[in-house]
Amino acid sequence: MEFKIGVLAGDGIGPEIVEQAIKVMDAVATKFGHQFNYTKALVGAIAIDETGNPYPDETHQVCLDSDAVLFGAIGDPKYDNNPAAKVRPEQGLLGMRQKLGLYANIRPVATFPSLIDKSPLKRDIVQDVDLVVIRELTGGIYFGARGRSEDLTSAFDTCVYTVEEVERILKLAYSYAGKRSKRVTVVDKANVLSSSRLWREVAQRVEKEYTDIETDYMLVDNAAMQLIQWPKKFDVMVTENMFGDILSDEASVITGSMGLLPSASVGRETSVFEPIHGSYPQAAGKDIANPLATVLSAAMLLESLDLLEEAQAVRDVVNKSLNEGVVTEDISGEGKAYKTSEVGAWLAENI
Amino acid sequence: MEFKIGVLAGDGIGPEIVEQAIKVMDAVATKFGHQFNYTKALVGAIAIDETGNPYPDETHQVCLDSDAVLFGAIGDPKYDNNPAAKVRPEQGLLGMRQKLGLYANIRPVATFPSLIDKSPLKRDIVQDVDLVVIRELTGGIYFGARGRSEDLTSAFDTCVYTVEEVERILKLAYSYAGKRSKRVTVVDKANVLSSSRLWREVAQRVEKEYTDIETDYMLVDNAAMQLIQWPKKFDVMVTENMFGDILSDEASVITGSMGLLPSASVGRETSVFEPIHGSYPQAAGKDIANPLATVLSAAMLLESLDLLEEAQAVRDVVNKSLNEGVVTEDISGEGKAYKTSEVGAWLAENI
Ligand SMILES: CC(C)[C@H](C(=O)O)[C@@H](O)C(=O)O
Ligand SMILES: CC(C)[C@H](C(=O)O)[C@@H](O)C(=O)O
Repeated sequence: MEFKIGVLAGDGIGPEIVEQAIKVMDAVATKFGHQFNYTKALVGAIAIDETGNPYPDETHQVCLDSDAVLFGAIGDPKYDNNPAAKVRPEQGLLGMRQKLGLYANIRPVATFPSLIDKSPLKRDIVQDVDLVVIRELTGGIYFGARGRSEDLTSAFDTCVYTVEEVERILKLAYSYAGKRSKRVTVVDKANVLSSSRLWREVAQRVEKEYTDIETDYMLVDNAAMQLIQWPKKFDVMVTENMFGDILSDEASVITGSMGLLPSASVGRETSVFEPIHGSYPQAAGKDIANPLATVLSAAMLLESLDLLEEAQAVRDVVNKSLNEGVVTEDISGEGKAYKTSEVGAWLAENI
Repeated sequence: MEFKIGVLAGDGIGPEIVEQAIKVMDAVATKFGHQFNYTKALVGAIAIDETGNPYPDETHQVCLDSDAVLFGAIGDPKYDNNPAAKVRPEQGLLGMRQKLGLYANIRPVATFPSLIDKSPLKRDIVQDVDLVVIRELTGGIYFGARGRSEDLTSAFDTCVYTVEEVERILKLAYSYAGKRSKRVTVVDKANVLSSSRLWREVAQRVEKEYTDIETDYMLVDNAAMQLIQWPKKFDVMVTENMFGDILSDEASVITGSMGLLPSASVGRETSVFEPIHGSYPQAAGKDIANPLATVLSAAMLLESLDLLEEAQAVRDVVNKSLNEGVVTEDISGEGKAYKTSEVGAWLAENI
């Protein structure tokens, strides 16, 4: 089969890690008899530099025309700690989410046995952790009205949710849980927030449609604790945008495999697949960055195209590289540290 | 000297743990020649049961008339998962914070060497952790306008901050840092929220007044990660209400000494001192709850009355009880489990 893939490499290590994922996808294409037609487009700081816009219209068109989008990372130190900068790379990300209607961010977090010692948590706490954080991505306080009072002495942000938005993301969460361990944890702050009470009401209705799935309600402060204390008890955690930003990042460090975590942002027309780590500017161009999170993002991408066997082949070869120690310096420990490009080539050969 | 102490024991284990703290305070009074005059008042579910109001006016008056308030815990399972309940214990807490102007919640988190194995984190990560989370407590999304659309299909909450509110809490944070390791981490989400950009602007101005203190800015998602990865790097973390709710709870589990963590809520007229753990209804009346967090809250209370030597005496006797294993079942491990009341009596005797 033939597929159109948008490729938005972005900033920092983005280009070099995306390149490895493409090597792997091409090996998959050869082995399984597909063809992936890639179209590159600009996003992030590099897009600002070249067009003045962190998410140019041409890039948006490329995404719309693609069956799926592979994304690297965005962010450049020259925009950090400069709250005055008028245009910022993050705006590109938020613009993309809104324009493509990327309403759900999906982050699987599973322990890799060979990396367990990299976790800040004790082995018995993180062994066998296997959870997914599903974050609502186009609503809430990220996209509500905001501003300053006229005299500039106060500022406000608004968190808004509609029943439809909540229903849509909850249904996605339940459908994920149905294919997994059949447990959904709905995280909110219903004892304080009106929007959270809406979430909880909708959830209490939606859960009745999924009788085979167990539903738990948890306040966000409690969830922030339990994620560290008993990460194993979670299967699918679903929550609103801001809480999801915090909890998904918190979840990403517990297993010690940060450099391996992929994500999918599911949209109306197309979906975007990207590693959860950032643009890591200090490593850019050095051929040392870990490409595995991007390669595993490509596996999620293949899955979204219903290429399940192909996705599994990618996961298998990643596991093989871990077992055989063909990995970059961040996880090589005492063993040899391979280059980014070497890991990519090895994965492609071993597919 | 003579002091008026308001005593709001609240729900669940509240009464029995507060009783132990009072035993210890009375021992302090005897030893150092002070007199504490206690006035009890209702708060929480028990206040709803008896008066229909979780924070009755008489209770408020008691707080206003006190030099300091000792607080137990609130919350009763009969109000959980009942979003329809018109009056809830939490409203008492929020009402109290607002009416007393308790603008800062202060939570020290330090590792107790004898409890380090209870931490979900590895020993080398939590050893020597010593940080304070300072949470803004009367502003932000907790107290902004909120509600439902007329057709009930959407709900909103508003996060508002004024320059004054931000300045006040930052100054408190800097004054804490001045007495500690001289590092302040300001946590916000300035790449998205308008209120966070206000925070950051104010902080960038305030930090100039404290040239001996190092200031760091951190996005809340990043802070949620770093708290677990490198908790030792933090000294004073200061943040807005909602982020503080999440991060202070997250911080509270990293050292494994949850049952020992005190807090202070600093107000205009008076301050309130309470353990950070909840009302633990399953244990209520069983004489098994750990009183140490409440006793250490009493130490913070003494400090607020400028009774520094007295506060230290309380901390010393708590350390002694830990070293000698005179502790409740939650932390007794292989050793003998003492009753709540026995621990309190032992502490009072050994002051
Ligand atoms: C860069 C920032 C706007 C973004 C967010 O908060 O959503 C990032 O933290 C993320 O999680 O993708
Ligand atoms: C009970 C609840 C309203 C409260 C809060 O969110 O402030 C609690 O979680 C706390 O941290 O004291």
